[in-house]
Amino acid sequence: MGDNIILPEILVTELKIIEVVGGNVFHCMKKTDNGFKEFGEAYFTNVKENQIKAWKMHNKMTLNLTVPRGKVKFVFVSPDNLTKFHVIESGIDDYKRITVKPGVWFGFMGISDEESLILNIANIEHDSNEVFKKDVDDIKFNWKK
Amino acid sequence: MGDNIILPEILVTELKIIEVVGGNVFHCMKKTDNGFKEFGEAYFTNVKENQIKAWKMHNKMTLNLTVPRGKVKFVFVSPDNLTKFHVIESGIDDYKRITVKPGVWFGFMGISDEESLILNIANIEHDSNEVFKKDVDDIKFNWKK
Repeated sequence: MGDNIILPEILVTELKIIEVVGGNVFHCMKKTDNGFKEFGEAYFTNVKENQIKAWKMHNKMTLNLTVPRGKVKFVFVSPDNLTKFHVIESGIDDYKRITVKPGVWFGFMGISDEESLILNIANIEHDSNEVFKKDVDDIKFNWKK
Repeated sequence: MGDNIILPEILVTELKIIEVVGGNVFHCMKKTDNGFKEFGEAYFTNVKENQIKAWKMHNKMTLNLTVPRGKVKFVFVSPDNLTKFHVIESGIDDYKRITVKPGVWFGFMGISDEESLILNIANIEHDSNEVFKKDVDDIKFNWKK
């Protein structure tokens, strides 16, 4: 179990799944964890296999992403080089938390047969003024490879 | 969308699912929501169809429970009468948040074909000293009715 800094803006933390008789406990985030800043809002989103949701960039929100169902390929674009990508897969068989600081363009795709579920624990409440969007083709990435 | 106080210790809040092209957004908790006290820890647990997890009581933790996958029957025992029960079903087709203050014995059972997932956003970090347990038969309840 360790933290892994991918970019100054991205921290990946392997998480524990605790096996309990009658159902497991999946850690997600504690207030004392690295990457935890403040609690603003928690929400889920879902994505089907091969479905792509891209691109978004938050300029105030720090995201903490976990995938408690299915599996997701996250693609982060280097802030200093929009042609350089960092791919992180996350899911129930590879359970981790991805902390994303503001200023990073990212997208994701479902890569499990079953629909995936993504939880974001964010440091601020949703505010459409701080979210920027691009169409999937605006940043060229080979999603299918 | 409203809040519904079941017991002084239990608040049920209907939540929004926002339909978005390419995947929905499921509200879960904002820091400005009723029932939000403080962020301590977020974790998931899972439960299969007809599987019962009972009974637990926290004497410090306030729980905020959502079910982003499947469907769960929660059973809360009146603190002043251990033979009086309050049943609340929660799931993706009946999406809500259940806030449970300390001092309430409760259990739950999966009631959907697919495995259910429960997210708890708690005001404190897990602490085994504040959790009390009873065997399922210690409090008589007809789970199958």
